[in-house]
Amino acid sequence: MNETIETILNHRSIRKFKDTPLTNEQINLIIEAAQQASTSSYMMAYSIIGVTDKEKKRALSEVSGQPYVYDNGHLFVFCADLNRHTIKADQNDYEQMLPNLENSEHFLVSAIDAALASQNAALAAESLGLGICYIGSLRNDIEKVDEILSLPKHVIPLFGMVMGVPAQEPDKKPRLPKKAIYFENEYQNHESELDEFDEAITEYYKSRQSNQRTDSWTDQMLRRFKKPMRMDVTDHVQRKGYNKR
Amino acid sequence: MNETIETILNHRSIRKFKDTPLTNEQINLIIEAAQQASTSSYMMAYSIIGVTDKEKKRALSEVSGQPYVYDNGHLFVFCADLNRHTIKADQNDYEQMLPNLENSEHFLVSAIDAALASQNAALAAESLGLGICYIGSLRNDIEKVDEILSLPKHVIPLFGMVMGVPAQEPDKKPRLPKKAIYFENEYQNHESELDEFDEAITEYYKSRQSNQRTDSWTDQMLRRFKKPMRMDVTDHVQRKGYNKR
Repeated sequence: MNETIETILNHRSIRKFKDTPLTNEQINLIIEAAQQASTSSYMMAYSIIGVTDKEKKRALSEVSGQPYVYDNGHLFVFCADLNRHTIKADQNDYEQMLPNLENSEHFLVSAIDAALASQNAALAAESLGLGICYIGSLRNDIEKVDEILSLPKHVIPLFGMVMGVPAQEPDKKPRLPKKAIYFENEYQNHESELDEFDEAITEYYKSRQSNQRTDSWTDQMLRRFKKPMRMDVTDHVQRKGYNKR
Repeated sequence: MNETIETILNHRSIRKFKDTPLTNEQINLIIEAAQQASTSSYMMAYSIIGVTDKEKKRALSEVSGQPYVYDNGHLFVFCADLNRHTIKADQNDYEQMLPNLENSEHFLVSAIDAALASQNAALAAESLGLGICYIGSLRNDIEKVDEILSLPKHVIPLFGMVMGVPAQEPDKKPRLPKKAIYFENEYQNHESELDEFDEAITEYYKSRQSNQRTDSWTDQMLRRFKKPMRMDVTDHVQRKGYNKR
């Protein structure tokens, strides 16, 4: 077990931070780390916005419904970005590029590029003793986030990430058994592994330090998917010229 | 600078490996690392398939057009997986879940979940002295990959990853200047940073050890997007019940 793997295995999301902003040196190192992630065909199809303006932070915190989107050491927003690739295009080039740029393939490419960069950023931060939490809840009102950050066409906000000096030590959250997510050579039935996990997770929710409850993973997921949520993401994405064809 | 950040900053994609398969211990540790990544609302919406069967590996190598998809220490395929969440659903639940499960929001969630896990896997492997390369070219024929791996509805193959003991030492590939991807408080014009990068990358392509050529990043991207590619990904994704609404 080396330091990198220890950092990876020690991850838990941190939602309460000390009142210490990240230093510029930390931010620079974290961005450098993000940028060194693999990128599909050298597209580097993402942008990162660091939000320090208090009004903007407050507004983003309201979109997410989470106080720690305001109270943290730094807030990043990771965006899929296919705008950069057309900046130097003339009108003729641009029109030729659109059918390709606006298909599902490049929606995937940009989301994956951004995610790989973000995970490097997360681990770099954690290796420096900082805590992090991904903020998917910015997509509660993706249109509003787009406005707050003045994003042009072909740029969409995917998720935020807050960082800071941890002011809590949450339990490590259990994961699915390996057999339920890793298969050899082809996809396999893993119903019995889900049963096993449901038992384990029910036990975990009953016995953890805070926020105890009776629940299973399967039930959580059924409830989640039965309640329509963020149905406007589809329209927003298409309006910004993504994922159209 | 700590070991984790050194590992991150030292990344280069490796496309030539020694003839040494990964050990089970290595694979287990890498999967454990992948699983510890953050996951949106605990959805863990991905599966990983380790391909050891020679015929399947050969077929996947043909899809990608890359010999190193066959010749490596191990081949993983990372899949978006929203099938798992419906396994325990009855018909009534299932029908209620579909509109939500099949929207762009959950297409994003599953792609991002898979990507975060994959980047943990990549860094865990690199920290063990292994080399890695992402294989987006599995999407050259996504339908074929789906068949080879027997993927059910609501599971799509996003990308592969090859790993092994490196048998090459490629140069580290330059990245966009920080000012071109990291903005404060709102999106910013970065045309002059692209010019700066084009100059740097032209120099890099002229002077690197192998595969020298005259090219700029901007020109590469214009060429790439002007040529329609993987236009069938859109249809495949929708056929598998993703990204429909």
